[in-house]
Amino acid sequence: MSRQVHLNVNILNAGVFGGSWRFPDTDPLASFTLGHYVDIARKAEAAAFDAVFLADGPGVREDLRYRPFNNLEPTVVLTAIAAATSRIGLIGTLSSTFNDPYDVARRLATLDVISGGRAGWNVVTTAGADVAANFGLDDEVEHAARYRRAAEFVQVVRALWNSWEPGAFVGDVERHVFADADRIHAAEHRGEHLSVAGPLNVPRSPQGEPVVVQAGASSDGRALAAAVGEVIFTAAQTIPDAREYYVDVKSRAALLGRDPEQVVVLPGLSTVIGATEAEARERRKLLAELVPPEYALNRLAGQLGVGREDLDLDRELPWRLLPEPDASGGSQTFYKVATDLARRERLTVRQLLFRLGGGAGHRIATGTPEQVADTILEWVDAGVADGFNLMPDVLPEGFDAFVDHVVPELRRRGRFRTGYTATTLRGHLGLDEPQWQRPGARAEAVAR
Amino acid sequence: MSRQVHLNVNILNAGVFGGSWRFPDTDPLASFTLGHYVDIARKAEAAAFDAVFLADGPGVREDLRYRPFNNLEPTVVLTAIAAATSRIGLIGTLSSTFNDPYDVARRLATLDVISGGRAGWNVVTTAGADVAANFGLDDEVEHAARYRRAAEFVQVVRALWNSWEPGAFVGDVERHVFADADRIHAAEHRGEHLSVAGPLNVPRSPQGEPVVVQAGASSDGRALAAAVGEVIFTAAQTIPDAREYYVDVKSRAALLGRDPEQVVVLPGLSTVIGATEAEARERRKLLAELVPPEYALNRLAGQLGVGREDLDLDRELPWRLLPEPDASGGSQTFYKVATDLARRERLTVRQLLFRLGGGAGHRIATGTPEQVADTILEWVDAGVADGFNLMPDVLPEGFDAFVDHVVPELRRRGRFRTGYTATTLRGHLGLDEPQWQRPGARAEAVAR
Repeated sequence: MSRQVHLNVNILNAGVFGGSWRFPDTDPLASFTLGHYVDIARKAEAAAFDAVFLADGPGVREDLRYRPFNNLEPTVVLTAIAAATSRIGLIGTLSSTFNDPYDVARRLATLDVISGGRAGWNVVTTAGADVAANFGLDDEVEHAARYRRAAEFVQVVRALWNSWEPGAFVGDVERHVFADADRIHAAEHRGEHLSVAGPLNVPRSPQGEPVVVQAGASSDGRALAAAVGEVIFTAAQTIPDAREYYVDVKSRAALLGRDPEQVVVLPGLSTVIGATEAEARERRKLLAELVPPEYALNRLAGQLGVGREDLDLDRELPWRLLPEPDASGGSQTFYKVATDLARRERLTVRQLLFRLGGGAGHRIATGTPEQVADTILEWVDAGVADGFNLMPDVLPEGFDAFVDHVVPELRRRGRFRTGYTATTLRGHLGLDEPQWQRPGARAEAVAR
Repeated sequence: MSRQVHLNVNILNAGVFGGSWRFPDTDPLASFTLGHYVDIARKAEAAAFDAVFLADGPGVREDLRYRPFNNLEPTVVLTAIAAATSRIGLIGTLSSTFNDPYDVARRLATLDVISGGRAGWNVVTTAGADVAANFGLDDEVEHAARYRRAAEFVQVVRALWNSWEPGAFVGDVERHVFADADRIHAAEHRGEHLSVAGPLNVPRSPQGEPVVVQAGASSDGRALAAAVGEVIFTAAQTIPDAREYYVDVKSRAALLGRDPEQVVVLPGLSTVIGATEAEARERRKLLAELVPPEYALNRLAGQLGVGREDLDLDRELPWRLLPEPDASGGSQTFYKVATDLARRERLTVRQLLFRLGGGAGHRIATGTPEQVADTILEWVDAGVADGFNLMPDVLPEGFDAFVDHVVPELRRRGRFRTGYTATTLRGHLGLDEPQWQRPGARAEAVAR
């Protein structure tokens, strides 16, 4: 049997494009209502997707005059989705820079327990002084320090998830033993950034512990992803770029003693689907036109760390003015993809904005369902992706098109499941359930 | 029409008694499953209760060999309840000592938005070095500092809840205005303990903002409750004690310029219901027998701040050894109620343990449904309670008995609604929807 494709859907507000909320027949405020997320999750479950994914940033990250942004808190939304579904995985983004590991461990463990083992945690380090100021910090935390804290944070959270040996809850009414204290273990962590006693007050979940997801692109980020990521999200525009990343993180994981098969790499993929290629291209053009150039220019300037006045729509990027990636202040994933793309194809700023579509640097597949299926399988067969984190152009409509037309095409080719064969997120992803390990005993390959 | 009684149900694990989980025909591990909470919430909604209430402490607070403890995280559980219900209020406990206000404001606002305006926040300051150690603190935070931080924390959270003026979300596709930036306001808070920029990224809820609940008993606690509490929980064993508290907090609130009618005071009430008084007493005796004396003695010693060896089951409390309430290290609510009760009635330790039932000092009503209804109305008619925060003896069975037999009795007497007349928690409680106020403009009566 040919290799099966893993698919998540990223419920990114109204869709991945800056103008998605303005698309004809779209409810512009839908992403502020729970039903938007629940309905898409139900469709994804009916199509046997591995998981829904919620990005997040605890702050107002976009210029809200122009487009929606992450708003409803992910663990709350995922719990509501859990209540409305029974199989699909539930991956939420929580920052390791601004939370307490005890609280993060507990909320995710609770979601994992109540959903029957369907939770995943996308660990992000959250750049930006604006968000830092929501958490009492005068300045943005420096890049390397964020990644050191993230590695330690994941280590502590996993130690807390292992507080309870399987079977620690006894509930023996006759002998008056509620729980077996000898099988419940404190974490007693004291590290560079964090100090946490434990034990956690939530029992072990049906999948052992939540799946850890990471999306590091910088050197620090790749080290973290390779050390702790069971699912790794990435952004790449071309097969060579995707291969470089895929081989690098799987090799790094292997060097740390991990089984590369237990690391699932999922690039982001935006989709613009039409009944004909011309219809898809027309749709793509409309989506670009729905974004005012001034907004797009401001956003790109901020992401690259240059002034708005340094960008000219009809010229190339101002190469000599661009800061080093780690001084850009934004996502290094985006920086690398955008500058590589512009340099390779000698794009004007206007062309670059069109190619990026207002997203975070993920590839955009524009075409018929067959063409979209082709490009998905091309990457998987090239061995540069285990599947994709889908970012439909317009929600819910663009996702309906994928489910109704691309999924059947993938099934015709025998490459996507027709129904679930497992009950947990680990099961869907082909990830082993981790053995219980006494907190502190896990030889964590910490990215330093 | 006589004054209506407000009723919440506190879903306290297996029930309020230390031995509730061992009660015949009870599932000892039920409180680790979501269905336990959802089923009770559905029953409470069918009976038109104001709200369900979840206590919490982010740690293992009880000796888990002997009884269940708070485990599943409250905002997650309440979200699942929200998805399974449509009217009942959802009150969750989150500590102001260990969380970030931005995160607390956001999770509660999200719960409030997705539930259609049904969220409430029980603000607790969380005593105990054991829990502090889960959040990186080597020592317990000192009592007065916890309350100063709590007052500031509530002020910031409310400022964040007022980030968005009503109608700030425009969604105007033609003019390309997603949100009206002039109607979105940062909090820009810089205080003694907290620094938060804002704005929050969640819109205003159908009830304006979540209901703030407090349960202060110490002088600092009463000041906080009077300043910020819209619902105030309390523990009292007698009508005079309840009156002292009721008059004190409502007077304090009035002195701060608040309308005392907008402060709903709900003492805790444990219930042990039988078809006859003798049956209820027998049930109460069995519940006491299900707790091993050694466990009960250890727990009481810890709560009062004395050594286990200082307590003798057949003598009174060791009065000369008791620390001052603020040096006991535990809940001052419990300390005051327990010592007042023991002193007033000259109880032996054994008698005191029986009277407290393993709870937190709340009154226990033991009797027939008519007797329980009598005692509820006696307190409400005496003007010392606006209703009760119910703590059934055994869950779910003891709550079933209340709903099936006490609620109809209260209705026969015209004192409890037969169905909901409102859709929000504020509506159920008779609390006004707060006017939107520009963050920082609210003249918060801060308890200092």
